[in-house]
Amino acid sequence: MSELEKILKTLKDGELSVEEAVIKIKTQPFDDLGYAKVDLQRKIRQGTAEVIYGAGKSAEEIIGIINSMQSSSQNTVLITRLSQENADEISKQITINYDSVSRIAYTGEKAKADGIGKIVVVTGGTSDIPVAEEAALTAEILGNDVVRLYDVGVAGIHRLLSNKEYIMSASVIIAVAGMEGALASVVGGLAECPIIAVPTSVGYGASFGGLSALLSMLNSCASGVSVVNIDNGFGAGFLASRINHMGGK
Amino acid sequence: MSELEKILKTLKDGELSVEEAVIKIKTQPFDDLGYAKVDLQRKIRQGTAEVIYGAGKSAEEIIGIINSMQSSSQNTVLITRLSQENADEISKQITINYDSVSRIAYTGEKAKADGIGKIVVVTGGTSDIPVAEEAALTAEILGNDVVRLYDVGVAGIHRLLSNKEYIMSASVIIAVAGMEGALASVVGGLAECPIIAVPTSVGYGASFGGLSALLSMLNSCASGVSVVNIDNGFGAGFLASRINHMGGK
Amino acid sequence: MSELEKILKTLKDGELSVEEAVIKIKTQPFDDLGYAKVDLQRKIRQGTAEVIYGAGKSAEEIIGIINSMQSSSQNTVLITRLSQENADEISKQITINYDSVSRIAYTGEKAKADGIGKIVVVTGGTSDIPVAEEAALTAEILGNDVVRLYDVGVAGIHRLLSNKEYIMSASVIIAVAGMEGALASVVGGLAECPIIAVPTSVGYGASFGGLSALLSMLNSCASGVSVVNIDNGFGAGFLASRINHMGGK
Amino acid sequence: MSELEKILKTLKDGELSVEEAVIKIKTQPFDDLGYAKVDLQRKIRQGTAEVIYGAGKSAEEIIGIINSMQSSSQNTVLITRLSQENADEISKQITINYDSVSRIAYTGEKAKADGIGKIVVVTGGTSDIPVAEEAALTAEILGNDVVRLYDVGVAGIHRLLSNKEYIMSASVIIAVAGMEGALASVVGGLAECPIIAVPTSVGYGASFGGLSALLSMLNSCASGVSVVNIDNGFGAGFLASRINHMGGK
Amino acid sequence: MSELEKILKTLKDGELSVEEAVIKIKTQPFDDLGYAKVDLQRKIRQGTAEVIYGAGKSAEEIIGIINSMQSSSQNTVLITRLSQENADEISKQITINYDSVSRIAYTGEKAKADGIGKIVVVTGGTSDIPVAEEAALTAEILGNDVVRLYDVGVAGIHRLLSNKEYIMSASVIIAVAGMEGALASVVGGLAECPIIAVPTSVGYGASFGGLSALLSMLNSCASGVSVVNIDNGFGAGFLASRINHMGGK
Amino acid sequence: MSELEKILKTLKDGELSVEEAVIKIKTQPFDDLGYAKVDLQRKIRQGTAEVIYGAGKSAEEIIGIINSMQSSSQNTVLITRLSQENADEISKQITINYDSVSRIAYTGEKAKADGIGKIVVVTGGTSDIPVAEEAALTAEILGNDVVRLYDVGVAGIHRLLSNKEYIMSASVIIAVAGMEGALASVVGGLAECPIIAVPTSVGYGASFGGLSALLSMLNSCASGVSVVNIDNGFGAGFLASRINHMGGK
Amino acid sequence: MSELEKILKTLKDGELSVEEAVIKIKTQPFDDLGYAKVDLQRKIRQGTAEVIYGAGKSAEEIIGIINSMQSSSQNTVLITRLSQENADEISKQITINYDSVSRIAYTGEKAKADGIGKIVVVTGGTSDIPVAEEAALTAEILGNDVVRLYDVGVAGIHRLLSNKEYIMSASVIIAVAGMEGALASVVGGLAECPIIAVPTSVGYGASFGGLSALLSMLNSCASGVSVVNIDNGFGAGFLASRINHMGGK
Amino acid sequence: MSELEKILKTLKDGELSVEEAVIKIKTQPFDDLGYAKVDLQRKIRQGTAEVIYGAGKSAEEIIGIINSMQSSSQNTVLITRLSQENADEISKQITINYDSVSRIAYTGEKAKADGIGKIVVVTGGTSDIPVAEEAALTAEILGNDVVRLYDVGVAGIHRLLSNKEYIMSASVIIAVAGMEGALASVVGGLAECPIIAVPTSVGYGASFGGLSALLSMLNSCASGVSVVNIDNGFGAGFLASRINHMGGK
Repeated sequence: MSELEKILKTLKDGELSVEEAVIKIKTQPFDDLGYAKVDLQRKIRQGTAEVIYGAGKSAEEIIGIINSMQSSSQNTVLITRLSQENADEISKQITINYDSVSRIAYTGEKAKADGIGKIVVVTGGTSDIPVAEEAALTAEILGNDVVRLYDVGVAGIHRLLSNKEYIMSASVIIAVAGMEGALASVVGGLAECPIIAVPTSVGYGASFGGLSALLSMLNSCASGVSVVNIDNGFGAGFLASRINHMGGK
Repeated sequence: MSELEKILKTLKDGELSVEEAVIKIKTQPFDDLGYAKVDLQRKIRQGTAEVIYGAGKSAEEIIGIINSMQSSSQNTVLITRLSQENADEISKQITINYDSVSRIAYTGEKAKADGIGKIVVVTGGTSDIPVAEEAALTAEILGNDVVRLYDVGVAGIHRLLSNKEYIMSASVIIAVAGMEGALASVVGGLAECPIIAVPTSVGYGASFGGLSALLSMLNSCASGVSVVNIDNGFGAGFLASRINHMGGK
Repeated sequence: MSELEKILKTLKDGELSVEEAVIKIKTQPFDDLGYAKVDLQRKIRQGTAEVIYGAGKSAEEIIGIINSMQSSSQNTVLITRLSQENADEISKQITINYDSVSRIAYTGEKAKADGIGKIVVVTGGTSDIPVAEEAALTAEILGNDVVRLYDVGVAGIHRLLSNKEYIMSASVIIAVAGMEGALASVVGGLAECPIIAVPTSVGYGASFGGLSALLSMLNSCASGVSVVNIDNGFGAGFLASRINHMGGK
Repeated sequence: MSELEKILKTLKDGELSVEEAVIKIKTQPFDDLGYAKVDLQRKIRQGTAEVIYGAGKSAEEIIGIINSMQSSSQNTVLITRLSQENADEISKQITINYDSVSRIAYTGEKAKADGIGKIVVVTGGTSDIPVAEEAALTAEILGNDVVRLYDVGVAGIHRLLSNKEYIMSASVIIAVAGMEGALASVVGGLAECPIIAVPTSVGYGASFGGLSALLSMLNSCASGVSVVNIDNGFGAGFLASRINHMGGK
Repeated sequence: MSELEKILKTLKDGELSVEEAVIKIKTQPFDDLGYAKVDLQRKIRQGTAEVIYGAGKSAEEIIGIINSMQSSSQNTVLITRLSQENADEISKQITINYDSVSRIAYTGEKAKADGIGKIVVVTGGTSDIPVAEEAALTAEILGNDVVRLYDVGVAGIHRLLSNKEYIMSASVIIAVAGMEGALASVVGGLAECPIIAVPTSVGYGASFGGLSALLSMLNSCASGVSVVNIDNGFGAGFLASRINHMGGK
Repeated sequence: MSELEKILKTLKDGELSVEEAVIKIKTQPFDDLGYAKVDLQRKIRQGTAEVIYGAGKSAEEIIGIINSMQSSSQNTVLITRLSQENADEISKQITINYDSVSRIAYTGEKAKADGIGKIVVVTGGTSDIPVAEEAALTAEILGNDVVRLYDVGVAGIHRLLSNKEYIMSASVIIAVAGMEGALASVVGGLAECPIIAVPTSVGYGASFGGLSALLSMLNSCASGVSVVNIDNGFGAGFLASRINHMGGK
Repeated sequence: MSELEKILKTLKDGELSVEEAVIKIKTQPFDDLGYAKVDLQRKIRQGTAEVIYGAGKSAEEIIGIINSMQSSSQNTVLITRLSQENADEISKQITINYDSVSRIAYTGEKAKADGIGKIVVVTGGTSDIPVAEEAALTAEILGNDVVRLYDVGVAGIHRLLSNKEYIMSASVIIAVAGMEGALASVVGGLAECPIIAVPTSVGYGASFGGLSALLSMLNSCASGVSVVNIDNGFGAGFLASRINHMGGK
Repeated sequence: MSELEKILKTLKDGELSVEEAVIKIKTQPFDDLGYAKVDLQRKIRQGTAEVIYGAGKSAEEIIGIINSMQSSSQNTVLITRLSQENADEISKQITINYDSVSRIAYTGEKAKADGIGKIVVVTGGTSDIPVAEEAALTAEILGNDVVRLYDVGVAGIHRLLSNKEYIMSASVIIAVAGMEGALASVVGGLAECPIIAVPTSVGYGASFGGLSALLSMLNSCASGVSVVNIDNGFGAGFLASRINHMGGK
C-alpha cells in the first residue's frame, strides 16, 4: 500500500480531516534554512545521505546544513570541495574527517563495504590523483572496497597491462585522466565491467581545461564506457557505488 | 590456473616446443579479413558478441564479418547504424531481423531477459525515438526487460510525474533527450538507480548538433548520472545491460 | 502635437530664429562629463532612471554621474556591480543603500510596488543567490512585489513542486540557474506567465563559465521562455518590471 | 477550493472509494498516441492550444495529433515548421490554413486581437522575413494586432528612424536579425517596451549559423532585451502574445 | 635606379669585388641584439618608426631596443602595452612621454598633423576608453588630427546622432566597442569613409572575452568596415594613419 | 547651409507650411517595395550605388529592386552572390554583365579608373580565385585599376617575392587566402600601404570553414592589416576602392 | 659557388649586361598558367616533384599543370583528392595510375624504396582506411617500403599488441584514427621512432568532424608524436618519407 | 632470440620453475613510488632517459623520482616546467643544471652531439623564446647541435631570408610562433627537411591562448610540417632529436 493510499484511507476512516490530509500530502520533506533547503528524506528516497557541495559555501552555512541533517538522524554527511580553511573552521564545532588531497570531509563512519565486488580507480598520471581520491573516498564512505592504480597512463602501456588482473576482475572501474584521456578506451577494451570515465583539467595548451579529455572519452570506441563532468570525482564515486550495490546488495 | 600458467606448464611437461609455446602465447584471437580484424574471443572475454558498427561499411564487408563470426559460433550478431539498402542486400544472403526506426539488425535470437530488474528508456520528445529505440533494442537483444516511456519531456512535467512509479522502480534508466537535455536531471532527482544520459542531435539553432544537450547532461546537478556520446543509443543500451547483469546475473 | 511640430510652429510664429531652431532640434539631451555622457531625459523617454554599471568605474566617476543625475531631478539612481570598497568610498559623500550579496546600491527610495502581480525569482542552488538577488532587488527598486524561492533545483523536483502555487500564480518568473540550467524548462512547463531565464556562471568543468546553462535555456522546449546574458540579474529584473507594468500599470 | 480538496472532500463524503480517488488524482491529463502524448488540458492550464512542432513528424503523425486535440474541443491548433509536402498531405483530410513563407499552418480561426497594444515585428534584412513571419503569424493566431517593419537594418539607420513612432508606441517588439544582430540594441535604445530578440541563421562565414547574432543580442547594452533560440520565430511570437495579454487582457 | 641595379653597376664598374657585392646584397638591414632583431631601415621601407610591443619585455630589453634605434637616427619610438613599473624604470635613463590610460609611451616629438582629414575615434562605453586612447595616441604620434567621441553606444542612439556631423565629415573612423559591438554597423551606415572596427574585451558572460563583439563586427552589414584584433587599439591607429596619408599626404 | 537649415529657412519664409516641413524632414529617402526598402539617396550620401546581395533573393525580387533604382537614376547597380540561374532569368528583362567565377553582375558601365593608385589582389592558391575575383571586379566597377597576383602562397615564397615590385608600389592590397592565412602577414611585412585581408573557406579539417585563416589574419603581427568576413570579397573590394579614393580622388 | 655568385661573376667578366643580370636574378622559377603558378625547380630545391591538390580543380586545369610539369622533366606527378570523374577525364589524355580508395593518382613510376627502414601505417578502425591509404600510397610513390596494420584500435588492445614487433621495428609510424584518437598515444608508448598522428573525421556526435581526435593527439602524453591536419594522409606520408630519407638516404 | 624466447627456453631447460617464469614474464619494469610509477627500462626500450614533467609535482616528489632513476643507472634525468623555487629546493640535495628561461633542469651531462646534422630553432618573436629554449635545451641534452634564429617573424620577411642558408642546410627545423603562426608555412616553403611547428600562447585577443597559431600551423599549405601541442617545446626538441638520430645515428 503506497503512502498516498494510506493517507487517503485514514481520511476515509475519519481519522483525518480534509485539511490535515491536504497538509500531509503536501508536507515539505525538507528543512528550509533560507539559504538552502535541506532534504531530510533523501536517505530514504535515494538510499544515501545528502551530500554538501562545499565550494562557494561559508563554514557557517555548512555547519548549519550539517546540524539540520544530523537532527534528522542522518549521521554520515559527505562534504566535497571543502577548503582547508573551512575544514579547520568547521572542526571547531563538529567532528569531521578531512582529507586534504581530495578536499573531502565526512561526519560519522564510513559505511561497511558490502558491494558486489571491488571498485578500481585508475589514473593516467600523478596529477590526476586529487580527482581520483575524491572518487575513491566517496566510494569508500558509501560502503565499497576500493583498489587504487595510479599513474598507469597509456603512454607506458606495460604499466597498465601488468595490472591487468585488477582491471579484469573489477566490479566497476573509474578511469581518471587528463590530457588525451585515452585511458578510458584502453581500460574499456580490457574490462568486462561498467567503466566510469572522469576527464580531468590536467594539461596545458590544447587540453583547453579538460575539453580534450572529455571529447576523447565521449568518443571512446570501447563499449561500456560513460562519462561524468570534468574533475567530477564525487559523481563517479557515487555512481560507481550505486552500480556496485545493484540488486539490493 | 590461468591460461598462461597452463601453456607454460604444458611446455615444461614437454608437450609443447618453445616455438609452439611462442605461437600459442601470441596467437591472434581474431580473424584478419584485411579490411577488419574480427574478434573471435570477445564473447568469452567480455561476455557479449562483437557488435558491427554498420555506418560506412558496405553490405559485402558486413556479410564477411558476420560469416567470420558465425563460423566461430557467435550466433547473435548485432549490427548498428545499418541503412535500409544494406539491410535489404544482406537479407539476400543471411537471415537478419531489421528495425527501420533504430536502424538495428541482428542475427539469431534475442537473449532471454535475465537481468536484475527492468531497464526504463525515457525520451523528451518524439524526435528522440530513433536513438531511444537503438538503446532499447540493444538492451533487449542482450537479455533485458525494457520499459519505454516516450515523449515525457520536462516542459510537461506532469507527463513524467504520472509515470513516476516506473521511474522509481527501474533497475537502470536511459534518459534520451535533445534540445536542453534537462530530462536527465529531473529523472536523476526522482530515481535511485544509475541513469545513463544520451544527448541527441534533435533541435536547431543553438542546440549546435547536440552540444547543448551534451553539456547540460554533463553538468547535471543530480547524482548517479553519466553520459555517452551524442546519439549513441547503442552505447547506452550496452552499458545498461552490463549494469543490469551485475553480480553475475 | 509632437515636440518637433511644436518647435517648427514656434519658428513659423517668429518666436524662434532659424539658428535657435537648429539648436533646439539638435540639443543634446545628455550631460557630457568627458568620460561619460549622462542621459538626463531617459526617465521621461523610457520610464526609469539611468542605471550605472559600476564595474570598471572608479568611485569618483560614479559620484560624478550620480551628481549629474540628481541635479536633473533623477532621485532614484541604481548602481550595479559595485564593489564593497567603492560603496564605502561613495557613502562618504552620498547616502546610498548597499547590498553586499547582490552588490547593488541605490539612492533615494524604492518605488511603490504597483505592478500587475508578483515577480517570482527562483534559483537552482544556493550559489545562484547573488545573481538572483541582483534581479530581485532591481525589481523591488523599480516598484514590484518580489517572491524569492531559492534552492529549488530540478534534481529535487519535489522542492519545486511543493511551491507550485507560487509558480502558477506569478505575474513574471525569473529563473536563475547555473550548471545544466534545466530549471527554466521545468518552470516553463508549470507556469502560464513570461519566464526570464538567467544562466549563471556557477559550476565547473564542462559548464564553461555558464555556456552550458545558457545553451540549455536557449533550447528550452517550454514556450514562454526567453534568456538574458550569463549572470545578468539586473537585466532580468529590469525586464520583469517592464512586463509587470504592461498596460500602463 | 482546489481540485485536490474537491476530490478529497468527495472521498470523505463517501461518494468516492479510495481506489477511485487514487485514480482521479493520478489520471493522466493527456492522450497517449504511442508516438506522442497529447496534452488535452493545456489550453486550460496555460491558456493556449498545444502547438505541434512539425519538423521531423510525418503527415500521418500530425493528423493523428490534430484529431486527438480536436476531439477534446481544442479547435485552434498551430503547426510550425511544416513542409509544403506535409501541408498538402494533411489538407486532404483536415482543413488547414498554410503559409509557405513562415511554414506555419493552423486549423480553426485566428483569435480576436484583444491584447494591450500592438506587437511590432522588425527585421534587419529581407532574408530574415521567414523567421519574422513565423513570429508575426503566431502572434496573430493567438490574438494580437501585428505591425511589420521589414528590412530596417542598422546599416541604414534612417530607415529605422523614419519608423520611430511605430517603435516608440509598440506594446512588445520582436527584433529579428542575422549577421551582426545589432538591430536589437538599437531598437532597445529607442523603445520603452519589452524587446524579444530573435537571432537568425542568415549570413555566411563568421556568422557561424547564427552564433554571431545570438552572442550580439545576449550582450546587448540596451535594457529590456531578452533572447530566444536562433530562428525561433514561434517562441518569440508566443512570448510576445503572453506579454501583450498581461493583467488578464 | 633600384638599389640592386646600383650595386650591380658598381660591381661592373670594378669598384666592388664579387665578394663585396654578395655581402652588400645580403647585408642585414637590422641590428641583432640577441633577444631581438631591431629593424633599422623600416622607417625608410614603411614610412614609420619601428614600434616596440612592450608586453612581456623587461625594462632593460626595451631600453636596449630604444638605444639601438636612436643610434640609427630613429628619434620617434613608440612603445605600446607598457606597464607603469617599466615606464618608471625606463624614465630613469631615457626621456619618454607616458600615458597611463592607454599605456603608450613615446620618445621624441609627435609628428605634425599632415593627413587628408580628421580621424574620429568613437567608443560604445566608458570602459572602452583605454583601447580607444591607444588608437588615438598612436594616430596623433604618427601625425594626425584626432577627434574623440566617447560613450556614444547604440543603446542611446541619440547620443551618436547628435554627433552626426563629426561622423559624416571624418576622414577615417575608428569604432571601438565591446559587448555586442553594434557601433561599427551603425557608424558604417552613417559615414562615407573607411571604418576600422576594434572589438574590445569589455563585457562579461557571453561576451567571451571580446568574441561577441569581434563576430558582430566581422558580420557587419555596413560596407566599408574592416576589423582588427580584440583590444588592438595600436593596430587601428596605425592603419588609420596610413589611410589618412594616402596619395603621398 | 545644411539641408535642415534650408528647409527651416523656407518654412520661416512662409514658402512651406508646418505640415509640409514635417513631411520634408521625415520624408523617407527609400522606396518601400514591401520585401525591401530600396535606398534611393545612398549614392548621394555614400558616393556609390546601392549593392544588392543576391543570395536568398528570387530573380523577381532582384529585378524589382533594379527597376526601383534605375527609376531614380542609379544606372550602375552591382549584384553579388548571383546564381547562374537567376542571372539567366534577369537577363531576359534587364541587360546585365555577369561573371560566373565571382558570381557578380552589374548593370550600366564600370566607372572610369580614377583612384590614387593601383589595387593589388593577391591569393594564396587557385581555389581562392572566386573570392578574389569578387573583390577585383567590385573594385573595377567602382573605378579602380586592379592588378591580379594569384597563387602566390607563402609556401613558395619566391613566387611572392618575384612580384615584390607590384606589392611595394600598390595603393591598397587585398590579400585573399584560406587554410593558414599567412599571406596577409607576409604581404603586410613587405608593403607600405593598407592591406585588407580576406579569409576564405578554402581548406578542410582544422580549417573549420575559414576560422583558421580568420584567426590567423586577425593575429597578424604585421601593422596595417585589417580583416573582413570570411569569403567577403565584395566588402574588401568596396573598402579598397574607398581607400583608393581618399582625399576626394 | 652559389647561383648568385655565378651570375655576379659572369656580370663582372662582362659576359652579362646589368639589365641581363637583373633579369637573371629575378627570373621566375615557375611557369605561369594564369590560374596557377607551376613550380618547375621544386624538385631540385626540395627533392620531390610538385604535388597537385586535386580538390576544387577541373580536369582541364589538372591536365594543364601536368603538361607543364612534364615538359620540365618532372615525370612523377602526384595528384591527391582526385574524384573518379576527373580521373576518368584525365585518363583520356594522360596515362595515370588511380586508386579509388585513397583518391590518389600519379604519373610515371613509383620511386624505388630506398629509405632507412619501413614506414608502418596503423589505423584505429576500418573507416580510417581511405586516409591511411592516402598516406601509404604517397609514401610508396616517394620511395618507401610501407607496412599496413589496419583496424588495430585501442579498444581491442591485443590486436595492437600482437603486432608489437612491427611497431617496435618501424622507422616511422603513421597513426591514423578518428573518434577518440587514442591510438597515437598507445603506439607512441610502444615505439622508439617518430610517430606522425593523423586525426580523421570518422565518428559522429561529439567527434565534431575530427576535433576530438585532433585534440587528443595534440595532448598525447607520449613523446615523439606530432600531428598533421584532420584527414591529411598526404601530409603524413610526405613527412614520413622525408624522415625516412634523413642523412642523404 | 627475443626475451620471451629466452625465458621460455630457460624454463624448458628446467632452470626455472613455472612460477618463476610467470613472475619473470610479468615482472614490473618500473619502480612503484605510490604517487608515481618510475619507468626503469625506458632508456633501453626507447633510447632516452625518463623525463619528469615538473609542473604540479612537489620538490620532494621530484627528488624521489630522480633518486629512483639514478639508482637504476639513469644518470641523465631531464626535468621540464620546473619552477625556480623547486629548482632551489632540489639543488640542496641533488646537483642539477637549471635554466630559468626555459625552466628546464637536468642532472649529469649533456649527451655528445652525434646526430645527422644541425637542428635549427626559429622563433617569430622575442616572446616565444622561453618555449624555443625548452626545445633547444632538450635537443642539446639529448645530443644534438642546435642553431638558434630568434625573432625572425614573417612580418619582416627579410630577417628570415637573410638567414636562408641556415634554414636550407638544417637537418630538422623547429618553428616556434604565437599569434598568427605563419612562420611554419614560410619556413616550410624554404626548407627541405622535416619541420616541427610549435604554436605558443603568446598573443592576446583572438589568439585565444594559442588556438590561432595552432590552427594556422595545422593548416599549413607547406609539406613536411607537423605540429605539437601549444607551448610544448620539450615535445618538439625530443622529436627533433629522434629524427636527427634516424638510421642508428
